[in-house]
Amino acid sequence: MRIDIITVLPEMLEGFVNESILARARKKGIAQIELHNLRDYTTDKWRRVDDYPFGGQAGMVMQVEPIDRCISALKAQRHYDDIIFTSPDGQQFTQHLANQLSLKENIIILAGHYKGIDQRVRDHLITREISVGDYVLTGGELPAAIIADAVVRILPGVISDEQSALSDCFQDDLLAPPIYTRPREYKGWQVPEVLLSGNEARIKQWELEQAIERTRQLRPDLLDKK
Amino acid sequence: MRIDIITVLPEMLEGFVNESILARARKKGIAQIELHNLRDYTTDKWRRVDDYPFGGQAGMVMQVEPIDRCISALKAQRHYDDIIFTSPDGQQFTQHLANQLSLKENIIILAGHYKGIDQRVRDHLITREISVGDYVLTGGELPAAIIADAVVRILPGVISDEQSALSDCFQDDLLAPPIYTRPREYKGWQVPEVLLSGNEARIKQWELEQAIERTRQLRPDLLDKK
Repeated sequence: MRIDIITVLPEMLEGFVNESILARARKKGIAQIELHNLRDYTTDKWRRVDDYPFGGQAGMVMQVEPIDRCISALKAQRHYDDIIFTSPDGQQFTQHLANQLSLKENIIILAGHYKGIDQRVRDHLITREISVGDYVLTGGELPAAIIADAVVRILPGVISDEQSALSDCFQDDLLAPPIYTRPREYKGWQVPEVLLSGNEARIKQWELEQAIERTRQLRPDLLDKK
Repeated sequence: MRIDIITVLPEMLEGFVNESILARARKKGIAQIELHNLRDYTTDKWRRVDDYPFGGQAGMVMQVEPIDRCISALKAQRHYDDIIFTSPDGQQFTQHLANQLSLKENIIILAGHYKGIDQRVRDHLITREISVGDYVLTGGELPAAIIADAVVRILPGVISDEQSALSDCFQDDLLAPPIYTRPREYKGWQVPEVLLSGNEARIKQWELEQAIERTRQLRPDLLDKK
């Protein structure tokens, strides 16, 4: 799988691309993540990619032309299954959507910045808008990183223990049960006795009960889906 | 405001801290963001901070002791209003919660990694668990960055144009209206006539209508809150 991220702040994402699961996926040849500096696609001599909004709102708006040039240059090289824009009013990003995107071959993620992007980009160039949550960020760089991380980690072979991913929160619409590791006691805080029992059937039963109980208390909406 | 982020992968966040709004807030003396490498707080000679889970689940679990040492060292230096753990089963992060956190003086954000953290950390050391969305990531580093970005950008004086933040999505439980910048026409794609009219009252009316219409279509749940 290949993910191209278009941004005005590639430096913000370099550490993430080089130090995270994405680096591991790249070394294993499973995923390729490329950062593109939008400023490389402007014809403006100051390398500006934004301008004042029509209508007198506050804030700066990313222009359609550099974005169109960048996306066109990428599309000339390969077919893209999706051209994603991260926006708080997009489709909610969920584990199910991550699973779905992990089946794609090539995707572009455009990270907005400043006040927003010219609406014509969204109307004519973008195929899917995704929101990672109901909050506003300085730019789409972190949401692009979120999508890349969630999608790449479930590609077969990326994380060493696939069982680990399959037992994560949401994969079965349940929250994960509590987990414990050594020491058995720390400052008087104990590990539940059942986990030390060695009785696998009892442990599995306890974990399922804990997962259901935790979901019922914290996220009853997930149980309604079942 | 001061935000301390505890992580096993500080390199993943350095670009973000040094190249984003957080850098600007730091230079202006408005916010201080400190990254702490959890491995500096282990007594293990291999600097390990994780171990196998009790009960035989897959994946590795972050141990209670290094986390307790790190948090204790920070608490010995100043009072913290909140010690936050980012987890998919935490309280949903929203713009309202970002506003609330922006009023705090000192917060710690603990970024989990691997399969998760020892439940005793959550039971005894954490004061608030926050989820940035219904998806699973490799670690809590990106959620910690999301929280820091959303909170710091609304601190007075951080972004140059405060009107810009006040007219963002969610601040009034409405999605933002579409925005446009130059050129007026690109490949035949036009800017709506009203925005070129110079009639401020008509423009404001159009923007409000567009915001309500977009919210009604994409996020009717936000209108129910009003």
